[in-house]
Amino acid sequence: MMSSDVKSTNITWHQGDITREAREKLHGHQSACVWFTGLSGSGQSTLAHEVENQLFAKGCWTIVLDGDNIRFGLNKNLGFSPEDRKENIRRIGEVAKLFSEAGVITMTAFISPYKEDRDIAREIMPEGRFFEVYVEAPLDVCEERDPKGLYKKARAGEIKGFTGIDAPYEAPEKPELVVNTGSSDLKTCAKQVMDALMKAGIIK
Amino acid sequence: MMSSDVKSTNITWHQGDITREAREKLHGHQSACVWFTGLSGSGQSTLAHEVENQLFAKGCWTIVLDGDNIRFGLNKNLGFSPEDRKENIRRIGEVAKLFSEAGVITMTAFISPYKEDRDIAREIMPEGRFFEVYVEAPLDVCEERDPKGLYKKARAGEIKGFTGIDAPYEAPEKPELVVNTGSSDLKTCAKQVMDALMKAGIIK
Repeated sequence: MMSSDVKSTNITWHQGDITREAREKLHGHQSACVWFTGLSGSGQSTLAHEVENQLFAKGCWTIVLDGDNIRFGLNKNLGFSPEDRKENIRRIGEVAKLFSEAGVITMTAFISPYKEDRDIAREIMPEGRFFEVYVEAPLDVCEERDPKGLYKKARAGEIKGFTGIDAPYEAPEKPELVVNTGSSDLKTCAKQVMDALMKAGIIK
Repeated sequence: MMSSDVKSTNITWHQGDITREAREKLHGHQSACVWFTGLSGSGQSTLAHEVENQLFAKGCWTIVLDGDNIRFGLNKNLGFSPEDRKENIRRIGEVAKLFSEAGVITMTAFISPYKEDRDIAREIMPEGRFFEVYVEAPLDVCEERDPKGLYKKARAGEIKGFTGIDAPYEAPEKPELVVNTGSSDLKTCAKQVMDALMKAGIIK
């Protein structure tokens, strides 16, 4: 757990009495982080909540960390500069890890455009518990949906550094799953995620 | 949920389908934040884990956020300057809130010496779900225990700004509970916390 980039000294690691394994036994399922990534308007937040609905109906312990929601709380002191975007994703990965240790299945729904940042989140999770889900949808479909009118603002130059317009989106190279919300409906995409979690033994 | 100090714009609040109340019904108990505060060596981390053991044995959903532990992850980019200490506590409060929304009973074990910072954590929690537990122990008892040898270093001037030595500790004025680890044993203190949670209707 020690890391060379830990800023504070004089701290020691306190191992709790209750292990993740013990919690998972109580919960009846394994913990995991399902990391949705995709363009704004790709439907990742909607999909994350739909998957949560289905997991909750099965009695699973769940949480959705939503890119928009978390910015009102934990990350309200971050903007959209490159450093702030990086720190945004770093914190979310760490929170997902805490939830994972607590035996919870965490869905994160963020654009998270950079491979490097997503890989940092992957690396801190236990082996086999990180599911990168690429929510694929063509840019023109996302721009057509434009649920928050952000593409319109970006095209008008009112928002700078908008992913897909004047900032890059790095598609996952080896995601655990690709779902296409342009060609499949919500239920179909959610079923793909549930099937993947079942196949990996996270849920029954 | 909107706040004037939110740095980013163009974000909207996405209400999840599953409410805290629905989660609490599934879990069989209410969520809460039990915020332990006290001097280094007062035994708050040990107490937090003991309370968690007892809650877990009752099938409750729990997590301990530990001052030392969390600094290896979420807050590893923070030191012990006044601003960093403030940000440390702020982030922890926000994470406790996320766990609370997920229906989990969160124990936080930090020195958290400043009233203002603790009050910020209190304010973002739902009414009646924040339990400030003042883990009282005389300074000389804490210094005698000195489990990590920190008081010794502070007295030798090797650590600056150490709470209780050359930095203040602001004792809670109206905590929900005071436990004294100088005069009571661990089990007795843990029972006091459990009783308080029962009396408040958080657990049965």
